[in-house]
Amino acid sequence: MKTKILQKLKETDGYLSGQELCDALGISRTAVWKYVNKLKEEGYRIEAVPNKGYHLLHVPDVFTESEIKSRLSTQWAGREVVCYSLVDSTNNAAKIAAEQGGVHGTLFLAEQQSSGKGRRGRNWVSPPGTGIWMTILLRPQLEPSCASMLTLVAALSVSRAIEEVNGLKAQIKWPNDVVVNGKKVCGILTEMSAEMEWIHYVVIGLGINVNVEEFPKELEATATSLRIEGKREVERVPIICTFLSYFETDYENFIREQNLSRFLEEYNKRLVNCGREVRVLEPKGEYTGVARGIDPLGALIVEREKGEMVRITSGEVSVRGIYGYV
Amino acid sequence: MKTKILQKLKETDGYLSGQELCDALGISRTAVWKYVNKLKEEGYRIEAVPNKGYHLLHVPDVFTESEIKSRLSTQWAGREVVCYSLVDSTNNAAKIAAEQGGVHGTLFLAEQQSSGKGRRGRNWVSPPGTGIWMTILLRPQLEPSCASMLTLVAALSVSRAIEEVNGLKAQIKWPNDVVVNGKKVCGILTEMSAEMEWIHYVVIGLGINVNVEEFPKELEATATSLRIEGKREVERVPIICTFLSYFETDYENFIREQNLSRFLEEYNKRLVNCGREVRVLEPKGEYTGVARGIDPLGALIVEREKGEMVRITSGEVSVRGIYGYV
Repeated sequence: MKTKILQKLKETDGYLSGQELCDALGISRTAVWKYVNKLKEEGYRIEAVPNKGYHLLHVPDVFTESEIKSRLSTQWAGREVVCYSLVDSTNNAAKIAAEQGGVHGTLFLAEQQSSGKGRRGRNWVSPPGTGIWMTILLRPQLEPSCASMLTLVAALSVSRAIEEVNGLKAQIKWPNDVVVNGKKVCGILTEMSAEMEWIHYVVIGLGINVNVEEFPKELEATATSLRIEGKREVERVPIICTFLSYFETDYENFIREQNLSRFLEEYNKRLVNCGREVRVLEPKGEYTGVARGIDPLGALIVEREKGEMVRITSGEVSVRGIYGYV
Repeated sequence: MKTKILQKLKETDGYLSGQELCDALGISRTAVWKYVNKLKEEGYRIEAVPNKGYHLLHVPDVFTESEIKSRLSTQWAGREVVCYSLVDSTNNAAKIAAEQGGVHGTLFLAEQQSSGKGRRGRNWVSPPGTGIWMTILLRPQLEPSCASMLTLVAALSVSRAIEEVNGLKAQIKWPNDVVVNGKKVCGILTEMSAEMEWIHYVVIGLGINVNVEEFPKELEATATSLRIEGKREVERVPIICTFLSYFETDYENFIREQNLSRFLEEYNKRLVNCGREVRVLEPKGEYTGVARGIDPLGALIVEREKGEMVRITSGEVSVRGIYGYV
């Protein structure tokens, strides 16, 4: 109901009378008043003028179910939202929810993570209020061996969202980072629980540095934020909603086709590795080559000496001139 | 210490004096006496004769850490053992332990499962005391896409163990069942938790019908037990220990080589599907063909009309004349 009232207030340019709200939503004036007060507590500035009604003056950039839902136009992505002011890791929260039957598309959002996770057990710095630390829970009809492609789909959706909302050129560092001006603004950590041929669930965690103003010395050279690059304070909720909207469509297309063919051209255009010398760190050793783009199954194609083409499906790839993993 | 005393008693044909035990293990006679009593409580029959010592008369077929460990000759497989008289599912117990740092090779054993799991959420009937319901926790250096091959490695190890211990011809129904005389005696359920290119852990659950004397009507045609097929009561612990011994070696070879080439010949000999007409149930539809064996990556090769060879990596395959999934 709070979400519906918020939506009505947003749809109205000037004042919306209490009576109109009552009629539209079928609740009492006292109930309207109570929900409006709850919204105020969450940081919304709502003016109430006798004989005129309610007027929404300011929407805070907060992670609440109502705020996310009132801006969403998706069918299932983010239709369930769980917001935390503090959580160990949104991926962990999503995994626990998944084990208990959490539904496809549920979004887990935190203002702060106490032990945010990067790949391979690395730490991810998640200070309060300055980033988007979120995880989406998925139950894909997909073979486990195809799940890694979901990271690439998410990377594409998030770079589109950043570009659309913030007007910054967002590139992808295969397989799971989004970079702006050569520095990382977003990392993606996809985890799954599966039987050998059947995925129980996948959680895709995204950490987006939004209003971080300064990074620790050791990250300065490799990490940046949307605020630093765009040189202005950035609203977080529009990025989330735009991401979910792109992702819902991209995901459905991907699941139907079970490959990345339709995304290849755009993905490879955004691929910061493309045409550049890369260093590939594999369990067996290290070598260099020139990245040529991804193939329909999400592998990175690297050209080695004498034109030999290698498909990289895992391991780490660093790009010369682009800051890689520390 | 209990395990060490048990081992000493097993190594001795006749009587072993309390003093010899004290000297060998560096503990007091009272301590020896206490541990011997604990063993008696677990069902061991130990005779104690003044001036002669202890004599092990009967070893019960129980799942205790001491009993398993006293018979194991492995380096890591089953070196940690967790025994339950009742648990929901050994796979679940192993997954919880894994999340809390459980070590590679830990074995989870239950006399009874209250909600034993089959593939794809199916139920697995696990009555008390008559079967081996166990799970081994692994932390393999392996790409998630290769994890399905572990099921095949385990199937091979368990069929060898059944053959060696019970003298029954054990065949494999690809990918995850072991059959004797065309009926299922063992099912394998492998689950994993992974990042896209990094396995957190794998749990391999094995349900072996050992001394089950009768099956419910609806399973009679498809399921059997070692006792029914061998026409005699069967000891469970030797099967477990023999399995672990084979599996440890097979696993290490597989992880080093990351493919099944070395197992192909034996696997395909044991493959009950081989050379037979099979019905393949795929998401896209159903078709028949003749199974030709597995390839080095664990896919089942099926020959369709006009000699077309298809690699089956998932889905279900039923074999004509062999009872399949219900």
